[in-house]
Amino acid sequence: MSQGKARVISTELLPNSEAEWKRLVKTTYIGQDGVTRTWEHAERTTRPEGSPFDGVSVVAILEKDTGREILLEKQYRPPLDKICIELPAGLVDKEETAEQAAVRELKEETGYVAQALTTSPIMFNDPGFCNTNFKLVEVSVDMSLPENQNLKPELEENEFIEVFHVKLDGLWDECVRWEAQGYALDARLASFAKGIQIAQKFGLVSRP
Amino acid sequence: MSQGKARVISTELLPNSEAEWKRLVKTTYIGQDGVTRTWEHAERTTRPEGSPFDGVSVVAILEKDTGREILLEKQYRPPLDKICIELPAGLVDKEETAEQAAVRELKEETGYVAQALTTSPIMFNDPGFCNTNFKLVEVSVDMSLPENQNLKPELEENEFIEVFHVKLDGLWDECVRWEAQGYALDARLASFAKGIQIAQKFGLVSRP
Repeated sequence: MSQGKARVISTELLPNSEAEWKRLVKTTYIGQDGVTRTWEHAERTTRPEGSPFDGVSVVAILEKDTGREILLEKQYRPPLDKICIELPAGLVDKEETAEQAAVRELKEETGYVAQALTTSPIMFNDPGFCNTNFKLVEVSVDMSLPENQNLKPELEENEFIEVFHVKLDGLWDECVRWEAQGYALDARLASFAKGIQIAQKFGLVSRP
Repeated sequence: MSQGKARVISTELLPNSEAEWKRLVKTTYIGQDGVTRTWEHAERTTRPEGSPFDGVSVVAILEKDTGREILLEKQYRPPLDKICIELPAGLVDKEETAEQAAVRELKEETGYVAQALTTSPIMFNDPGFCNTNFKLVEVSVDMSLPENQNLKPELEENEFIEVFHVKLDGLWDECVRWEAQGYALDARLASFAKGIQIAQKFGLVSRP
């Protein structure tokens, strides 16, 4: 994916009263020492009522003849003014489980039909800065299904996503290369890649 | 660490004009299709001029007789109203390198004296929501140094951090347990743990 025409033209401060998707909040809290202080943070305004999380990210590992590959996405992100490499992800709909959201988002963004295998605890993106969070859902993709060979993503009108996959084994080295090529790296993806690299570096063996 | 008295008393919308550390921004951008659109996002106001990143997180692995352990922190986070388990981390100072920031923050927050080993690409916490980012610095800690047995953290007046370490090998299982115990999980830490778990699950072998 080339960045093409995509670029930021201008930025301006946004008052909460005009914001539709995000807001800035001041919290008054009591600290561990009993002293009352304030804290600033940012929030999404989209979390469904009753849901403890905003969205999901998807770990989809494809079993290829040449080894396991992980499904990733390239997407221009205006806050960074760069194309960012990320796990497939999306916001959860009202009354939707994490597993349903993961399967739906993966289908919409990549065309792959998958089944949820495991779901993580809630993970907070930047706990001092905002309350945004997600669950990480690991899915299985049956590559023998006809629909997984004839992919039909259903992107929204303003979504431009390039889907690709790389060897799970060398993901960290790819992250380093992608930055050198001018891409931005999502922290959840890069932290996952670093975990694999550290496990390999220290020869951490399989656990029962 | 017990949450003790720590709790949110109230929250209110915060106008940009009164915000000190964060701001809400509207970006006008051209998309890949050449169409002009707007995007909302949040930013830190603390990134030093000329620095492409906000801060650092630290992977500090302690070589213990009983196996490798990773250094972690518990900290009450007002945006979550929970104690969150995270890697040691902090904002970068003006004209400071990522390596200097990592060694300084680790010393201040945990007391450990360390040396930087490797530094990651820039990692973006939540690219659709905000532009906050960091570099992940892996450090070595010489446990034979006297200062690393007689730890002297230098916390600020409003910082309350409990330092602890757990086996690198079982980090993902610990993450699951921590949530069940009522702790919040940082996404960078949990993604790193998931990477280790996936490497173990698939028996990914050491790379040269």
